[in-house]
Amino acid sequence: MPDCPFCLPRIEPDIILADEHCYAMFSRDAVPEGSAMVLPLAHRETVFDLTPEEWTATRLLLDAMKRKLTGSHAPDGWNVGWNVGPVGGQSVAHAHCHLVPRYAGEPLAGRGIRAWIKDPANRPPGGMMGNA
Amino acid sequence: MPDCPFCLPRIEPDIILADEHCYAMFSRDAVPEGSAMVLPLAHRETVFDLTPEEWTATRLLLDAMKRKLTGSHAPDGWNVGWNVGPVGGQSVAHAHCHLVPRYAGEPLAGRGIRAWIKDPANRPPGGMMGNA
Repeated sequence: MPDCPFCLPRIEPDIILADEHCYAMFSRDAVPEGSAMVLPLAHRETVFDLTPEEWTATRLLLDAMKRKLTGSHAPDGWNVGWNVGPVGGQSVAHAHCHLVPRYAGEPLAGRGIRAWIKDPANRPPGGMMGNA
Repeated sequence: MPDCPFCLPRIEPDIILADEHCYAMFSRDAVPEGSAMVLPLAHRETVFDLTPEEWTATRLLLDAMKRKLTGSHAPDGWNVGWNVGPVGGQSVAHAHCHLVPRYAGEPLAGRGIRAWIKDPANRPPGGMMGNA
């Protein structure tokens, strides 16, 4: 897609690892240090739009980036995952799997990807959400 | 594993969907409402320990639970992912992929899985992390 910041050819200089389906790059904010992403080369809006081949390639590139970051940064833990849609915190509509190295020295060490989202303080003022 | 809260046969009453490799269940805290997980039936410590067949099955069950939750809860977005290790916020050492429905009415709508972790406030007091 011409306007997409995660599509070729624009993204080519940032590619660290790739196969025929997906590529890996570092996250631009780089917090925590070494934060990376794995993305399909083709424009897919969300993780649910990945082809089976892209899903398999995502795993292989996550493994390869984990090995690379283990060597360079020796993190103490990880988070792996996708945001979907603006309400879910997805900032660019080209699916990107975050690979986040975590460090024992972080002020937020031990907090996972749902730490704040699952808190009762995140219940909407009206009570129940959705159709349930 | 006998002590694992996510292993068979203990987990059997909680299974919502399953194939020969993986199963899906609802998260016990249920915040946001409809929060679910997809897990390997065999005991695997982290996402990086999943077999290729379990990785493929995870995607199929994520898709199936998403369809189910779309029907029951009509969320406005999603988060999908794993915590790895205690420092990464993994509370049970049996890999579990969170499938989190998100709602426009949440106080934290629009915040993704890295919203707090990537904040500069999460830099350790000593500065750089890891070996970098």
